[in-house]
Amino acid sequence: MKSEFTRILIKYGFADYKAEKCAEIFAVNSLEGVYSHGANRFPRFVRNVRDGYVKPDTEPSLIHSTGSLEQWNGNLGPGPLNALFATERSMYLAEKFGIGLAALSNTNHWQRGGTYGWFAARKGFILICWTNTEANMPAWGATDVRLGNNPFVIAVPFKDDAIVLDFAMTQFSYGKMENYRREGKKLPFAGGFNESGKLTDDPVEILRTRRALPIGYWKGSAFSILLDILASVISGGQSTHQITGSKVEYSVSQVFIAISKDKLYNASSIESSVMQIINDLKSSVPEDESTWIRYPGENIIKIRKENLRSGIPVNRELWDEILAL
Amino acid sequence: MKSEFTRILIKYGFADYKAEKCAEIFAVNSLEGVYSHGANRFPRFVRNVRDGYVKPDTEPSLIHSTGSLEQWNGNLGPGPLNALFATERSMYLAEKFGIGLAALSNTNHWQRGGTYGWFAARKGFILICWTNTEANMPAWGATDVRLGNNPFVIAVPFKDDAIVLDFAMTQFSYGKMENYRREGKKLPFAGGFNESGKLTDDPVEILRTRRALPIGYWKGSAFSILLDILASVISGGQSTHQITGSKVEYSVSQVFIAISKDKLYNASSIESSVMQIINDLKSSVPEDESTWIRYPGENIIKIRKENLRSGIPVNRELWDEILAL
Repeated sequence: MKSEFTRILIKYGFADYKAEKCAEIFAVNSLEGVYSHGANRFPRFVRNVRDGYVKPDTEPSLIHSTGSLEQWNGNLGPGPLNALFATERSMYLAEKFGIGLAALSNTNHWQRGGTYGWFAARKGFILICWTNTEANMPAWGATDVRLGNNPFVIAVPFKDDAIVLDFAMTQFSYGKMENYRREGKKLPFAGGFNESGKLTDDPVEILRTRRALPIGYWKGSAFSILLDILASVISGGQSTHQITGSKVEYSVSQVFIAISKDKLYNASSIESSVMQIINDLKSSVPEDESTWIRYPGENIIKIRKENLRSGIPVNRELWDEILAL
Repeated sequence: MKSEFTRILIKYGFADYKAEKCAEIFAVNSLEGVYSHGANRFPRFVRNVRDGYVKPDTEPSLIHSTGSLEQWNGNLGPGPLNALFATERSMYLAEKFGIGLAALSNTNHWQRGGTYGWFAARKGFILICWTNTEANMPAWGATDVRLGNNPFVIAVPFKDDAIVLDFAMTQFSYGKMENYRREGKKLPFAGGFNESGKLTDDPVEILRTRRALPIGYWKGSAFSILLDILASVISGGQSTHQITGSKVEYSVSQVFIAISKDKLYNASSIESSVMQIINDLKSSVPEDESTWIRYPGENIIKIRKENLRSGIPVNRELWDEILAL
């Protein structure tokens, strides 16, 4: 999968080493079960490159530094490469100062936020990062779509791996609701509003109104607003309402905050502290025998192992489409 | 209200200036409509001082500094004073480096997280802060209570005031569910699980099972876990499961991250950028005529004005209890 992606990206103007790095991010997203932002999204990414929204040959440039905080212009480069770059900058600043922040204006869709969390945490850093997006969710009490789902990530080193939280502000993504609709199923919980303004678990109704439910009702709506304000203010880049003005989602704003675990006075006891928290979580009484009480990211580790063993499942038509690129 | 609180705190061992500062925080919480963490909570705070869980005469001491990050021991001092102190330290570090973090171990309940957000934002800083708490919410899929509701705050300067998000990981606090129960009302949305493990909007059933609903179902559960891990790891303090071991909730862990608005290259355009975001939000189509689409904290500003005009509503019995302290 990675070598196919690399071949295609080189064809579309990526330098060899950039093509390989970007291909790896897409392939690992599928490997780890986030198919929506792995192979499934690759053709759209290539179209955005072809149409000039994503520029394969640019690099981020430093606009301003205040010491532990840096503001970068992503120059519309490939989202995953820019995000990885900013993650590394925030880690560098954290290494130097304890906590460091790198903000990116004028960048592109990072695909899967967790990518950067796993990367930083495996190298011993705590990472908090988020992106804004085009509008895809109504504010609480509104019927029209003005807020982004603004994915938010927190990652912490854990054993040889990581604990990673990676969530968007909508209860269910449109992709997920499409899947339920296609299978003729209801959502497991209410996921939006129907035409009478009532909460519903029927994906057909929600896909019609486009009134996806913010997590925690008014709370997720408010969190989305603040994440957009912070992303655009701290980076100096576009906010959701500006991004939404374009036909294609591009030139988004992102923030990456890293903390160096090894610089904390309690560095040597962190692993056992986190282990105790996880052990306590695992000692929860499950609601029934089949329930697996898991920590954030634990399922990713499981899927990664399964897919490494038996291969990454890919839709045949999608794969043919990719081969033809 | 402030002068009564000051009198009582001095009686319980607070130095004059500390008593006044702490009294002001409690009084302003009630002034701004957060009664649950203003006057209503004051008697409990005084009991915790009397019983030695909150030490009126200690100050935070610096354990470790890495430059832009500092780890402080709260020495079980009054939560609001310690939190205000750490907020100011994070602002000082942000002033110096761009972004700064002050962590507090061994501190006490900060009452209302928004207090510190409003404080920092009014002085031109972005603030992100959170605290862990004793366990009061089950993990997703569990029936017993092992996670904290871990309130989380984001504040941004806005005009002469601020935009402040201040939310806990439970959909409804137990205090709020108690109020609904007392009034014989249902919750406006499902807020927990009943004895058959089904979601319910009946506060009586939820108060019986103690299975309060995390915001966004599995998402709020995961967010709570990460906030606890970060608070305890970054401060070197206790995690939720350790706090829960005591009879009284004390010695909690907190993190304060500040960013200096004025040090950003785009400082002069931030106000208009935020205004545009708020204007776009306000142009949402409300679901009905009576719906007020508001930004986070806007209601606080409204209540503050109302209460400044017509006085702070206080329960008569509660006020008599306070006068007798």
